[in-house]
Amino acid sequence: MKPYKLAIVGATGVVGRCVLHILEEKNLPNLEYVLFASHRSAGQTLSFMGKEYVVQELNENSFDEGFDFAIFSAGGDTAKKFAPIASAKGCIVVDNSSAFRMEKEVPLIVPEVNSEEIANHKGIISNPNCSTIQAVVALKPLDEKYHLKRIIYSTYQAVSGAGSKGLSDLEEGITSFVTKKEYSLQKFPYPIFNNCLPHIDVFLENGYTKEEEKMINETRKILKRPDLKITATAVRVPVFNSHSEAITVEFEKDFHLEELVEVLKHSPGIIVQDDFQHAIYPLASTSTGYDEVFCGRIRRDESVASGVNLWVVADNIRKGAASNAVQIVEKLIALDQDRTR
Amino acid sequence: MKPYKLAIVGATGVVGRCVLHILEEKNLPNLEYVLFASHRSAGQTLSFMGKEYVVQELNENSFDEGFDFAIFSAGGDTAKKFAPIASAKGCIVVDNSSAFRMEKEVPLIVPEVNSEEIANHKGIISNPNCSTIQAVVALKPLDEKYHLKRIIYSTYQAVSGAGSKGLSDLEEGITSFVTKKEYSLQKFPYPIFNNCLPHIDVFLENGYTKEEEKMINETRKILKRPDLKITATAVRVPVFNSHSEAITVEFEKDFHLEELVEVLKHSPGIIVQDDFQHAIYPLASTSTGYDEVFCGRIRRDESVASGVNLWVVADNIRKGAASNAVQIVEKLIALDQDRTR
Repeated sequence: MKPYKLAIVGATGVVGRCVLHILEEKNLPNLEYVLFASHRSAGQTLSFMGKEYVVQELNENSFDEGFDFAIFSAGGDTAKKFAPIASAKGCIVVDNSSAFRMEKEVPLIVPEVNSEEIANHKGIISNPNCSTIQAVVALKPLDEKYHLKRIIYSTYQAVSGAGSKGLSDLEEGITSFVTKKEYSLQKFPYPIFNNCLPHIDVFLENGYTKEEEKMINETRKILKRPDLKITATAVRVPVFNSHSEAITVEFEKDFHLEELVEVLKHSPGIIVQDDFQHAIYPLASTSTGYDEVFCGRIRRDESVASGVNLWVVADNIRKGAASNAVQIVEKLIALDQDRTR
Repeated sequence: MKPYKLAIVGATGVVGRCVLHILEEKNLPNLEYVLFASHRSAGQTLSFMGKEYVVQELNENSFDEGFDFAIFSAGGDTAKKFAPIASAKGCIVVDNSSAFRMEKEVPLIVPEVNSEEIANHKGIISNPNCSTIQAVVALKPLDEKYHLKRIIYSTYQAVSGAGSKGLSDLEEGITSFVTKKEYSLQKFPYPIFNNCLPHIDVFLENGYTKEEEKMINETRKILKRPDLKITATAVRVPVFNSHSEAITVEFEKDFHLEELVEVLKHSPGIIVQDDFQHAIYPLASTSTGYDEVFCGRIRRDESVASGVNLWVVADNIRKGAASNAVQIVEKLIALDQDRTR
């Protein structure tokens, strides 16, 4: 059988490197890889799957070689320019940027939630925003059982979501605290070290950030609940990796708390960590390195007729980006094999 | 005029030292001070108001000397034991612990919100929980104007609220990141460095933490809204000082956003920092050292008929504890002077 050819675009970035890492862990059969990056990073050599790969410069002819799939982790501008070129040449693109997420014909996929929509793609599939992915993994089974009425998101987001410059701002802040040497911020408008910044992505005219708007719109699209009532406050915290989220949910139907916990325990991609008597709850530090979404602090919200509070933590680079994208590629391969079988 | 005599109990702790600092800043006329601490810390010498004070050991005879006022910042157990002794001897106690806050005859005071209740004291006045103080300063004027219907609190709380051992856990975590040397946690069950802990104070049977319960019950008491619908998620973040809070509020009455912002701007103790086009919003780093409550990210919550999202930040050791207590003492002095005039 001819191997599938997979392009890794943005291979040298924080998410791209994690994609490579996850592909090594999974060691999927019958795949060939080509690694791409921008002019600035092309020419680097990366160790991958026991070989040395020279990173190719991404250009308009990159997809002439007959790729089956591409995982783009290179930002919106690169995606807008090169994803249509790739898909026009028959390569199915899984894009980590926000460029196409809200386009009607582009499936926005979290495999545990709406993998049935993958087959509807027209050449491009979007990977949702990291904060949205972990939230909808937890909320989908609750929506099915109790019908969501309203969601209030408050996020505690790690700096890895802001890329290598974001990581550097935190690392330099920490080092400066010890060495007392000054440093310059590369990514954030204010120090993220020793601070919480209620500002992720750009501000919109209504005073929301684009990150908050993404959480609202992408949740609606993925859950196929276009009118679902949602509000969000997205905050960057001085944590290197894994996003935490306080999610307050109101349902149409009533629930028994123990049953709701059981629903979460038996839903795909979720690990319930909720034993407050032994101080067991999800943490950024213990979620990093995993592909599951961790749920805890599950408590009835007594301020509404049928509500619950959740604390939802996941590795934003793995489940929030890289491993979700690889999962989609696996599903695409399975679909292709079903078709040709 | 005979000077007022003020006891500072718990003078060597994080809050006690801040009380001294604020008293130095304010330099109130006609006051004498005696500093107390537990056996462990008594005998230390503290520089205060240009003099050296030897810290006295707190015991059952400490209040025999005829104190007018005491500020207790020594925890619940010390307060339960010594505040009744002090008040029985005519000393009015302002207590920073949670020991008496929910007792019916004890006023729970935030001077900007309910100073009219100070005069009702029976010898003990409670200072509310830090997270509650900053919230109610922002919410009181909105309750008066638009009538609060429901509040959802998500907090981002600094480690200074956990005292010197909490500060040490964060500082050692930061240092260890640079030096790679191991360290032992003194306060928190998990590292607070590089982590968000959804666990402040102890857990209750319903799965809420005591901190969350305090925010719910104290808000109701201070606002005199015993049936107000409130839920809360209280989270410790790796920030040394100043609590941030995402507050989602629903009102009975409708509002114009610009008018609501004006209401906040013209209310006591509030500074509105809300100019998203110039990335102006409250931050822990810029709130530290101030007594005001900073409000920003003021946006309509489109998920309910009449709702707003707020980002509220304040120095938890100053406004959340020490300066609120000193403000109460100032009000007590003014009441006494009115009475004797």
